[in-house]
Amino acid sequence: MTTTATWPNSPAHAPTEDELAALHAWWRAANYLSVGQIYLMDNPLLRRPLQREHVKPRLLGHWGTTPGLTFLYAHANRAIRQRGLNAMYITGPGHGGPGLVAASYLEGTYSDVYPAVAQDEDGLKRLFTQFSFPGGIPSHVAPETPGSIHEGGELGYALSHAYGAMFDSPDQIAITVIGDGEAETGPLATSWHSNKFVNPQQDGVVLPILHLNGYKIANPTVLARIGDEELAALLRGYGHTPLFFTGGFDGEDPMTAHERFAGVLDTALDQIAQIKAQAQEDAAAGRETERPAWPMIVFRTPKGWTGPETIDGKQTEGSWRSHQVPLASARDTDEHLADLDTWLRSYRPEELFDEDGRLLEKIADTAPRAEHRMSANPSTNGGSVLRPLRLPDFRDYAVEVPRPGGAISEATRVLGTWLRDVVRENPRSFRIFGPDETASNRLQAVYEETDKQWNADFESHDRDEHLARAGRVMEVLSEHQCQGWLEGYLLTGRHGMFSSYEAFVHIVDSMVNQHAKWLKVTNELEWRRPLASLNYLLSSHVWRQDHNGFSHQDPGFIDHMVNKKAEIVRVYLPPDANTLLSTYDHCLRSRQYVNVVVAGKQPNPTWLSMDEAIVHCTRGLGIWEWAGTEADGEEPDVVLACAGDIPTIETLAAAKILREQVPGLKVRVVNVVDLMRLQDDSEHPHGLAQRDFDGLFGEDIPVVFAYHGYPWLIHRLAYRHDRTSRIHVRGYKEEGTTTTPFDMLMRNDTDRFHLVMDVIDRVEGLTTRYAGLRQQMEDERIRARAYAYEHGEDLPEISGWQWDEEAEEVGTVSATGGDNE
Amino acid sequence: MTTTATWPNSPAHAPTEDELAALHAWWRAANYLSVGQIYLMDNPLLRRPLQREHVKPRLLGHWGTTPGLTFLYAHANRAIRQRGLNAMYITGPGHGGPGLVAASYLEGTYSDVYPAVAQDEDGLKRLFTQFSFPGGIPSHVAPETPGSIHEGGELGYALSHAYGAMFDSPDQIAITVIGDGEAETGPLATSWHSNKFVNPQQDGVVLPILHLNGYKIANPTVLARIGDEELAALLRGYGHTPLFFTGGFDGEDPMTAHERFAGVLDTALDQIAQIKAQAQEDAAAGRETERPAWPMIVFRTPKGWTGPETIDGKQTEGSWRSHQVPLASARDTDEHLADLDTWLRSYRPEELFDEDGRLLEKIADTAPRAEHRMSANPSTNGGSVLRPLRLPDFRDYAVEVPRPGGAISEATRVLGTWLRDVVRENPRSFRIFGPDETASNRLQAVYEETDKQWNADFESHDRDEHLARAGRVMEVLSEHQCQGWLEGYLLTGRHGMFSSYEAFVHIVDSMVNQHAKWLKVTNELEWRRPLASLNYLLSSHVWRQDHNGFSHQDPGFIDHMVNKKAEIVRVYLPPDANTLLSTYDHCLRSRQYVNVVVAGKQPNPTWLSMDEAIVHCTRGLGIWEWAGTEADGEEPDVVLACAGDIPTIETLAAAKILREQVPGLKVRVVNVVDLMRLQDDSEHPHGLAQRDFDGLFGEDIPVVFAYHGYPWLIHRLAYRHDRTSRIHVRGYKEEGTTTTPFDMLMRNDTDRFHLVMDVIDRVEGLTTRYAGLRQQMEDERIRARAYAYEHGEDLPEISGWQWDEEAEEVGTVSATGGDNE
Repeated sequence: MTTTATWPNSPAHAPTEDELAALHAWWRAANYLSVGQIYLMDNPLLRRPLQREHVKPRLLGHWGTTPGLTFLYAHANRAIRQRGLNAMYITGPGHGGPGLVAASYLEGTYSDVYPAVAQDEDGLKRLFTQFSFPGGIPSHVAPETPGSIHEGGELGYALSHAYGAMFDSPDQIAITVIGDGEAETGPLATSWHSNKFVNPQQDGVVLPILHLNGYKIANPTVLARIGDEELAALLRGYGHTPLFFTGGFDGEDPMTAHERFAGVLDTALDQIAQIKAQAQEDAAAGRETERPAWPMIVFRTPKGWTGPETIDGKQTEGSWRSHQVPLASARDTDEHLADLDTWLRSYRPEELFDEDGRLLEKIADTAPRAEHRMSANPSTNGGSVLRPLRLPDFRDYAVEVPRPGGAISEATRVLGTWLRDVVRENPRSFRIFGPDETASNRLQAVYEETDKQWNADFESHDRDEHLARAGRVMEVLSEHQCQGWLEGYLLTGRHGMFSSYEAFVHIVDSMVNQHAKWLKVTNELEWRRPLASLNYLLSSHVWRQDHNGFSHQDPGFIDHMVNKKAEIVRVYLPPDANTLLSTYDHCLRSRQYVNVVVAGKQPNPTWLSMDEAIVHCTRGLGIWEWAGTEADGEEPDVVLACAGDIPTIETLAAAKILREQVPGLKVRVVNVVDLMRLQDDSEHPHGLAQRDFDGLFGEDIPVVFAYHGYPWLIHRLAYRHDRTSRIHVRGYKEEGTTTTPFDMLMRNDTDRFHLVMDVIDRVEGLTTRYAGLRQQMEDERIRARAYAYEHGEDLPEISGWQWDEEAEEVGTVSATGGDNE
Repeated sequence: MTTTATWPNSPAHAPTEDELAALHAWWRAANYLSVGQIYLMDNPLLRRPLQREHVKPRLLGHWGTTPGLTFLYAHANRAIRQRGLNAMYITGPGHGGPGLVAASYLEGTYSDVYPAVAQDEDGLKRLFTQFSFPGGIPSHVAPETPGSIHEGGELGYALSHAYGAMFDSPDQIAITVIGDGEAETGPLATSWHSNKFVNPQQDGVVLPILHLNGYKIANPTVLARIGDEELAALLRGYGHTPLFFTGGFDGEDPMTAHERFAGVLDTALDQIAQIKAQAQEDAAAGRETERPAWPMIVFRTPKGWTGPETIDGKQTEGSWRSHQVPLASARDTDEHLADLDTWLRSYRPEELFDEDGRLLEKIADTAPRAEHRMSANPSTNGGSVLRPLRLPDFRDYAVEVPRPGGAISEATRVLGTWLRDVVRENPRSFRIFGPDETASNRLQAVYEETDKQWNADFESHDRDEHLARAGRVMEVLSEHQCQGWLEGYLLTGRHGMFSSYEAFVHIVDSMVNQHAKWLKVTNELEWRRPLASLNYLLSSHVWRQDHNGFSHQDPGFIDHMVNKKAEIVRVYLPPDANTLLSTYDHCLRSRQYVNVVVAGKQPNPTWLSMDEAIVHCTRGLGIWEWAGTEADGEEPDVVLACAGDIPTIETLAAAKILREQVPGLKVRVVNVVDLMRLQDDSEHPHGLAQRDFDGLFGEDIPVVFAYHGYPWLIHRLAYRHDRTSRIHVRGYKEEGTTTTPFDMLMRNDTDRFHLVMDVIDRVEGLTTRYAGLRQQMEDERIRARAYAYEHGEDLPEISGWQWDEEAEEVGTVSATGGDNE
């Protein structure tokens, strides 16, 4: 374990008066541009008297947090220049969009990316007008904002994103502002503990700055109202050395505030430099570096700092009334217009911009240049630094399949062997995230190559299995953390996956929403380069949570994801180990998607050889001739369709019963791997044309579809196709408990016997002729349940899941005691 | 503000040796029964030699956390008896199901509720066999477990539930065990701050016990590996006085551990008694009580305490290997069977149970009696103590509607006036929860009657508007906290609602899943009485987040909810203020549902008089004759259907255009309030029979449906009805940004002009004849967008949303500066 870079460590010097004056001018400029964006659509330099028609008709934006953000940005810039830091800026209070747009404009990045918004008066007018304006840019820090990897519209993920961005970035620092409102969210509250997972030698630095401006929309914030002593204890308890700064109150001269804050920031950065120097020394000596108490800053300043002190007689600066747009009637009343004029002119724009409207050189000089600008840090446009993974040939990990179902394997365990080698080939750019379930989901082969990264205390090796100060597997019992870290890692140009129990991935429903939105918007921004996809592996799924019971049974994440834009979302249900290998290889090569892969971890038949699996996965769905009984060129009587590993087994078992019991019935078996192929081709790029749909599912024959999740999803996907009322779907209908695997299927009418009954009920002419078989199927169900209720396990002939009674176990481990679940 | 009860405060005395011996015996009994449940299906008292066939074939359960839970339960019982406490026990580590089942069995509650599981050897056999067994009970603490309000299958909500349960329960204490795995989750991490919202005078007490057994499934836990000093700082930072207990290591005599822990628990309870006494004194003197540093306990004991020290040569007790079933091969190998025998006999069952298999009287006597048993606390069967709300007549709050659309009102603001009086009439049993958005969602009339409850520091009254030490509104910027508190409040027999921005309620997707599962299971348990419904009010919805932009736009929570069982879920989209009043009155009267109500907060037309609104809401959907042009008794040419306030406006505007521009076209307008009515009556109790569906939507005419959310949901709901491919749905298709309200509609093709185009495209014979009108609609769209892009606001004739140009504003407030959003 070595660091790849030397931490910049120029000795700090206290800023000179001139430096502070320039810094202050830059701050005034950033604030001026922020207020301008919120209010103005014309007269951007106030060279004419301010008129009502210069003010936007709809005033949208959030002032309250903005001046604090610009203050911190200005000071970060000083430090970057002085120390040569490689920094990015993560804006937890994403509402402060105008501040970050202003900063990137002042640094020139904005005009680089959007040339129409040039460095002149016309550019300023465009900059102001476009903000929160139809056809313009959003009000929050957004994908459109250069230098951002974090929207901050939904709160709580700033620190997780920051740590994710810093893993394997040893020469970088993420200056991360956390709003004190955001700090009340659960995800943020736990993400402080990320410092127990960061490695000072091989990872970068997160400098959290808690922006304690005291108020949310209409309330004080909790952390602003517990006193400094309790707050300091909390932050020390989180493992930090807190540095407190209070500034801007009681009419403090801003120059004093600047001078004092520069000192606080220098202290923090000196401490960091010391920690990094120690880490480098340790690395050189081959020693481990123990977890240090990283510094962090509590930044207590007035909400809406430098804004109007009072409006309509009510305190505004330093109160929740600054949260959004303080002068809401600036276009409507003379009084508010005059207040706005005074406010804008308080920044003395005439001292900041030259004749053409360009920021004065001496002020611009306070910001860093080129890629040292936080708004131009290449890592914040992750696709621009992304390199493809070196992927071992997944075909080499295939399970040998002598005939369909002729080999038994645990799909995720087989995948683990390939992932082990993906880890080996990509020691600095691929990580596996999960809430304490990597082994439970049977990916433990990766531990032959790497460990779980951990930087809290260690005990004995026996108890701390596969735990090390550096490793590719990140486990913490917080799906929010896993998701946030992975997003941060991907957004800065790396690769990864998230392995989770299927039911509990719902915990991050809202987070993945935001990531999908980010991807959608960046698809429309040419300068944002494509990112590696966000890959889920959902195992321990609904059909095999029979031991954990109802609380652990929920296949609805798929339903959640298919609401996102079609060009972003892919859902795969590989039915066996070989198709899982092929699917995951595809996912790790893909860009700009959210790939949801659901796969079981229990010993199951392997249906397809690797060559067949590749063809099947490439098509996304297909007819399994060997499983059906249709004759060449003739339309079958019924289609048995299936998606998901367990429904596939039941479908094949049903097909077998039908072959034996209903001679002459022409059954087609269709297996679906890529769920989006069920859509119409007008709805999804993977969708099927009607002709192809008919080619697979017939034109007007019954389809009995056994699906992994909630059955109605199949209808929702296929509804645009013609004659879909003939499709009868079975799946999980929220009937779960602790029981046997087969009883789970029976409770949801998705077992093989019920599928046969469905065929008898739906194929013309069978109902009467095969009433006896139907009754026999009912009897089989009763027998299966009675056996389970008496013996506590399934009938051996069912629980073996045997399609091929001679099948050999390949790629499994006898289950005795191996896995905690 | 006064307390309604005196806190029991008998002076504590250290337990005598006899008391400790009996306590220890009770603990052994609880552990014995726990191990028995996990492993045995016969020979429950080991009166015969243990045989393989006595062991269950599938060993399912979680041993690791169980002995700690039973230890704490036993000690809590001693304290309850000695002090006369009114206590409940909340089990964060819900995996420890066997321990809680054992405790309630030992207290007799289990046999009271399930008489077949009697207090004898046969009852014991049933108790053991049923656990994690088909047809039996789940492996976790579950609704089936007497005394539980908290399943704990999905982790993170123990403290939120506990605080929710304690609001307005001044004489109760919730002894709340938090697993150290669970403690890593975001929701748990922030829920410690609940103590800033509890009022010592009028609320009950939460005693958190952090169960630091050190390991998760396969990892150490973070809080167990940061050292006591950092952990103590963290807990003090959370506002607690931590008391540390470490016991059971290095062969400590359990009697010593008992004695020491009794002292720690007594210290905590003495501190609590002191705080409560102070609160009572303050209340009597009319003084406020400042937030105390409530005690909490850090309980560090070995994972799998009293279980096998090593198995197969690997450390088990005190390691993650104890997490689940440590002797996985007890049925398969002689060695494991012998180990199990030794383990079970180590509890000396022959000293615990009498000849009949009943717990010895002297041991049973250590537990409290009747309702003092935590397993029989009536509040934990909330429905049994639930009293209906006193609801003011909602009709008195109606907006006067001279004619359809003849009055403009803000629906949620009108609802607020009724809620204000609901609060007044129910000062101790109704609370409103929300993440800092009660006023932003325009329910602020409630502040005429109550305040936001807050027990952190106060500043000036001006800045701390509507903030007080006691109040009915609970605001914290954590949807997890809001949801968890509300669930705890409902589960203990009270009423409430959760008002949230629509997009961010996804944050609690997984939590509401678990609550819906709880409701489903309790529906099947006669002894669990019905709870008040969990009521959402989703405002600031997708169509009016035009100012916050894309990150705030997501109507998918409805989609998420309709996956839950039909008998649990109700979704309402009242189109105006009067229908919202009628809907919410219904919701607050209902039981055992999750009611999702989506309603806007912006000034909108009010369509129906209160009498009409009641009829419409009772039907759930209906034809608005006044809006259409159909002739009596004739089938219309087209149905314009709508659900949601904004789509309703657009639909009526489209109908108006059609009436004027396409004379003779017979248009029917159908409005849907109760979304579940679109289902088939076999799918949902509110579903429509085919005949009724046809009666509303015609048999085979085109339907153009403008829907609030993702359009495919309508297809998914209606798919069982015949001929649904004629239904063409418009809605939000994930095209959002910061723009004008009308541009939002246009981006998603749900604007009035597009609806008219849809009609022209779908009604036979219109396409050619009305090509000009179609082009005109296109032109209107272009004009509307061009105006917005130039002026930053919508065309006045559109933005007025005017159906009736003479409409009066009733129940609105001019929007200038009134609301932060």
